[in-house]
Parts: sequence; structure tokens; C-alpha cells
Amino acid sequence: MHEIFGFLISLTVILVSAKLFGEIAVRFGQSAIIGELLAGVIIGPSVFALVTETPVLASISELGAIILLFEVGVSSDIREFAKAGGWATAVAFVGVILPYFFGYYTFLHFGLSSTQAIFAGAVLTATSVGITARVFMDLKKIESREAKIVLGAAVIDDVIGLTILAVVLKLVTGGTVTFGTIAQVSGMAVLFLVLAIGAGLLIAPTVFRFITKMKQENVVLVMAFAFCLLIAALSSKVGLAPIVGAFAAGLVLSSTPQKEEIRKGIQPLYVFFVPIFFVLMGTNVDVSTFNPFIPGNGQILLLAGVLFIVAVAGKAAAGFVVFKKGINKLLIGVAMVPRGEVGLIFAGIGLKNNVFGSHDYSALVVVIMLTTFVTPFALKYLITREKK
Amino acid sequence: MHEIFGFLISLTVILVSAKLFGEIAVRFGQSAIIGELLAGVIIGPSVFALVTETPVLASISELGAIILLFEVGVSSDIREFAKAGGWATAVAFVGVILPYFFGYYTFLHFGLSSTQAIFAGAVLTATSVGITARVFMDLKKIESREAKIVLGAAVIDDVIGLTILAVVLKLVTGGTVTFGTIAQVSGMAVLFLVLAIGAGLLIAPTVFRFITKMKQENVVLVMAFAFCLLIAALSSKVGLAPIVGAFAAGLVLSSTPQKEEIRKGIQPLYVFFVPIFFVLMGTNVDVSTFNPFIPGNGQILLLAGVLFIVAVAGKAAAGFVVFKKGINKLLIGVAMVPRGEVGLIFAGIGLKNNVFGSHDYSALVVVIMLTTFVTPFALKYLITREKK
Repeated sequence: MHEIFGFLISLTVILVSAKLFGEIAVRFGQSAIIGELLAGVIIGPSVFALVTETPVLASISELGAIILLFEVGVSSDIREFAKAGGWATAVAFVGVILPYFFGYYTFLHFGLSSTQAIFAGAVLTATSVGITARVFMDLKKIESREAKIVLGAAVIDDVIGLTILAVVLKLVTGGTVTFGTIAQVSGMAVLFLVLAIGAGLLIAPTVFRFITKMKQENVVLVMAFAFCLLIAALSSKVGLAPIVGAFAAGLVLSSTPQKEEIRKGIQPLYVFFVPIFFVLMGTNVDVSTFNPFIPGNGQILLLAGVLFIVAVAGKAAAGFVVFKKGINKLLIGVAMVPRGEVGLIFAGIGLKNNVFGSHDYSALVVVIMLTTFVTPFALKYLITREKK
Repeated sequence: MHEIFGFLISLTVILVSAKLFGEIAVRFGQSAIIGELLAGVIIGPSVFALVTETPVLASISELGAIILLFEVGVSSDIREFAKAGGWATAVAFVGVILPYFFGYYTFLHFGLSSTQAIFAGAVLTATSVGITARVFMDLKKIESREAKIVLGAAVIDDVIGLTILAVVLKLVTGGTVTFGTIAQVSGMAVLFLVLAIGAGLLIAPTVFRFITKMKQENVVLVMAFAFCLLIAALSSKVGLAPIVGAFAAGLVLSSTPQKEEIRKGIQPLYVFFVPIFFVLMGTNVDVSTFNPFIPGNGQILLLAGVLFIVAVAGKAAAGFVVFKKGINKLLIGVAMVPRGEVGLIFAGIGLKNNVFGSHDYSALVVVIMLTTFVTPFALKYLITREKK
């Protein structure tokens, strides 16, 4: 009976604090995610210690990450790849490569191990354009050429990022880093994604034609989610992160006629599970990391500062690969700056696999939060200046 | 990585089998619950052993039971108590007392312990009118006086049943059974329900007026669910089953203006969590219990048969307390026969607290399934005969 009490109270505290701090963040014009992370920091062990992670909470949080990436996949449009065309691909690739090497060398420069540097580079590759899309929408910029390139690049970025994560994960769990292993693992990751998406695209329409004939309510939603869990399980079986499979499953279903039904149905699961994920991510942040009076912390704060600068510079520079007149290149680059949820997931996987210590993780989370924090202001400034 | 694979595959198998067997049940005019239980039996250890219960699955299943009772509570109408009036109360009380003592003496007669008999009696008190309501709706009988009495009685029955569960649970975990302890524990249970519902009714409107001003999406749903989890946690703290608190929380929210929003929003959580609960209930059934060629099983089959007869007779007889002309008393009684989800939860709690062995539990589950199985046929027969 004690166990169930602790479990239920933890869930209560997580959900209520997520909504309260999320609300405060939204009121200040920020993403709710910022509030949820802060909620986690505050209820976590380093401040009030109201909630500690248990295997059950960790599993539920894992489901949160899976649902998040599934939703990203379902909301994607495979045709965007084609439509967005060459510029989006170029922006995506440069926007992955620059932050990766910037992050890698920054970590090495601060005396951290090469494994840590490889993982930190991967964390900085992610792009989360949810916030950008929101700002574009608010400022009626969502139909612009810049927005199309950014949204196309973000989808491609997700695929590249998840492939990099697969490689990096194999390296830290597997062992030696050689060119051969990198090629082998990335080959595997791409092969899995291609096979899962290919087979899915072939089979899904037939399966869902059968499912839509079923008489129970919500059967499409449950089966779609079961499909997501299955592909996530398989991807963990071949050594990839479960979120890679969840994203692939989402991409497959994004091309079915049931896309909108699934998106709408998954929403309440999202509403319940995803804040749990962000709050638990926050609980892993150790606030003492940022106390400048603790000896040694100066170094970490400096690391976070430098990481933040390279994180912004790497993405912002990517916008300038678009050699086209009349395009606001800086706007494209800045729009790609937020790392958001995908970056957090990568950092969390690094922490779970003991690549990062509590301090490195905390620094990365703050950098991710900052990139998400500053982007709306920067975008609003660039768009208003352009309109004059 | 292996753990997460097993967890995700188990969830996949549970959800897919729940929907497939649920579909078969629905096609045969049965409740989906029957199919979900059968799915559990088949994927469970006693047949294909595809899924075994883990602490994480058990916690998710517990959330399923909590969401189920929360939904029952939210869907209730406190005013029904008053409207349904004296007849409903009389039917509810007699429909609890008769099956309780019938079940108790049947278990004693079969040489089981008095603790087991007390718990078995409690299992038989539950009423689940979801199936009945569905049949009444299909046959356009839902507005009849009989239906009103049955629905009113069912709500009262839930309250009595949960109080009995609280008492029984204290007795099996606490120790000695005296008149004093029974009075004390039932006093506690009633006090908790009254306090939780009373305080909730006082505070909820103010809290929800504040919550509806929040700008985030789905905030009412999340806060309502957090409230449910909190009351469930508190009820487990005072030694009651968490579902008692979940039901009380639902009752409180059933009188707020947000009732319909909460009901609609909780639906997808229900769709995901509740089948997991029923399937896991099914996995605990040991099919070998029903093999008549295994020595000793004749006794268990006989027990199940007798329990089924008293379970039906006890509820059917309760209809005859309505001393009113022009009322179909047998119809009322038969409508109360299905034990459904609440009976299953009671049986599951008995199994978890080692009151029941695997065989006793299996016999009870089959009895509950049978009461749910036969009722639609009997009701259709009684209503069609009446219309002639």
C-alpha cells in the first residue's frame, strides 16, 4: 500500500507542477516546456526533493518520449521532403554538421573525454521547430518561403539526428570508435529506418483498411499506438533508441487516411505522458551546478556559456547556405536554433548511459533551455524589422 | 535495453489482443470486456505465456482501475441518489446483502476459510450496469421506470460495495474480525467518503474556476486527473483501496460544469489504460482450473457453478423488494446481475493480498464473466416478452 501511495502522489505532484509552471511560462510568452523543466528542477532532488525517479516513473516517462516522437512523425509530411527540396536538405545537413563539430571541440577543449564530446555534439544537432512554427503562425509568416524551408529542414534534421543518436548510442554501449564501426552502425540505422518505413508504407494501408472495419470505438487509435510501440520495441532490439522507431512509425502513419484521426486521438495521451517526461528530465538537473561560489563551478558555467554560443552560431550559420535572392537567410538560421525536446531526449539518454555526469547533463539542459528561450524574441525582432 | 524491449512488446501484445478479442466479443453481441479477459487468459502464463506481469505493468494496470472508477464516478449523477428514491435504495441494499451472504455461505460450505468467504461475499455484491444500460438503450427501454430504478440502485451499490471492500481489505490486512473492528473500519470508510466528497464539493468549484482561466490546452483534464490521483493516493494512505478515492473524486467532479469536458477528455486515457487492466486480470486466470480431468478440479467447477447460481439468484431476488404495481420486478433484478469490472477489481485485490489462491480467483473470474455474459440474453427475452 505504501508503494502505490508514493506512485500516485508522485504523479499528482508531477502533473500539477507541470501545469502550474507551464502556465507561468506561457504567460511570459514562453513555451510550456520551459515551465515543465523548471517544475522538474524545483520538485527534484536538488531543490525540494518531492519526487524521485522510480523504475515505474522512468517507464512512464519513456512512454512520454515515445509518444512525443510518434506525434512528431505523424505530424510530418513525407511529401515535405520532396517539396522543401534542395535548400531544406542543405540547411538541415549544414545545421547538423556545424553544431556537431562545434559541440565536440568545445567539450574536448574543456578537458572532457572524447566519448562525452561525441555525445555532446549529437545533443547539439537536434532541431525542434515546434516553437518556431508557433511564432511563424502568430506573426502570419507560416506560408512564407522561409517557413517552408525551415519546416522541411526540421523533418530531415530529425532523421539525421536520430541516425546520429543511433550511431552514438552504439558507440557508447558497444565500445571502440573506428571509421568501420561508425559506417557499420549508421548503415544499420539507415537500413532499419528505410526497412521499417518501407515495409510500413506497404503494409499499413491494408492493415488499416481491415482495422477501420472493426466496430469498437477508438480502435484505429489503439492499433496505431500499438504499431508505434512495436516498431519502438524492434528498434530497441536492434540497438537503436526506441524513439527512433516511434518516429519511423509516425512517419509511416502520416501518409494514411487515418492521419488526422490518429493525431487527434493521441493528443490526450500526449497531454498526460509528455509533461511527465519533461518534468522528470528537469528532476535530473542539479541546481548546485550553477552556484558560482562552489569551487569548480566557474568552469561548468563557462562551458555552458560557450556551448550556448556555438549552439546558436552553428544553426544560425546554416541559414546562409541558401544562395537565393530575396530570402532572409538569418531568419532561417535563427528559426533552427531551438533544440527543445529532441535535444533533451539525447541528453537524457547520455545521462542514463553514464556518458554524462550530473553536472555535464545540467549544463546541457540549461543550454537547450536557453536556445528555446531566446529564439522567439530573436524571430520576432527579425520578422518585425523585415516588415518595415 | 532488454527491459525496455520486453515492456514495449508486452504493451503491444496486450493492446492488440485486447482489441482483436474485444472485437470478436462485440461481434457476438457481447461486451468487449469479455473479449479482453479472454485475451488475457490466452496470452497469460497458463496458455501461451506471451505476457507476464511486472511491477511496471502492474502499476499501469492499477492506473487503469483508477481511471475506470473515476469515469464511473464522473458519469454518475449525485442527484440520481435523490431522484431514484426509496425503491432504488431498497433494491441496492437487498442486492448487496443477499449475494453477500449467499457467497459467504457457499464458500464456507466448500470448506474454504472464513476470510476467503468474507472476501468472496464482497466480490458478489458488486453491480456493473454498463452492459445493462447498453441493452436498455438498444431496446429503447432507457427512459422506463425500471431503468431509472436500476441506474439509481447501481450508483448506491457502488458506494456500498466500495465501503464493504474497504472493510474487507482492512480485515484481511489488519487481522482479527470482531464486531468492533467492522464498525470501526466501516465508520472510517464512510467518514473518508463523506469528507472527501464534502470537502471536494466545497473546494472544487473555486479551484476549477481558477483552472479554467489558465491558458494552456487540456488543463482542466490534467488537473481533474491529478485531483483523482490525489484522492486515490489519500484513500490508499488511510487503508482504503485507491479505487475508492478515484470514485469519490469522480463523484465530486460530476457536479462541476466541467463534467462533460472531463468525461470526453478522459476517454482516450480510458481507451489505453482500461483494456490493459482487463487483459492483466485475464492473465491471472489459470485455465487448468477448468480441466475436469485434473483431480480436485471437480470440486472447483462445482463451486463455480453454485456461485453462479447464487450470484444470479441474489440479485434477481432484489428486484422483488419494489412493492409497486405495473413494475417489472424480475427485469429490475436481472438487470442488476452483471458483476463486471467492479467485481473483477475486488477479486483481483483478493488475489494480490493472497486471500485467494489461483484456483479460487479463476473460479470467481469465470462466475463474473458468466453473469456479464448471460444478462443481455435474459434482458432481451424479458423485454420482448413484456412488449407482447
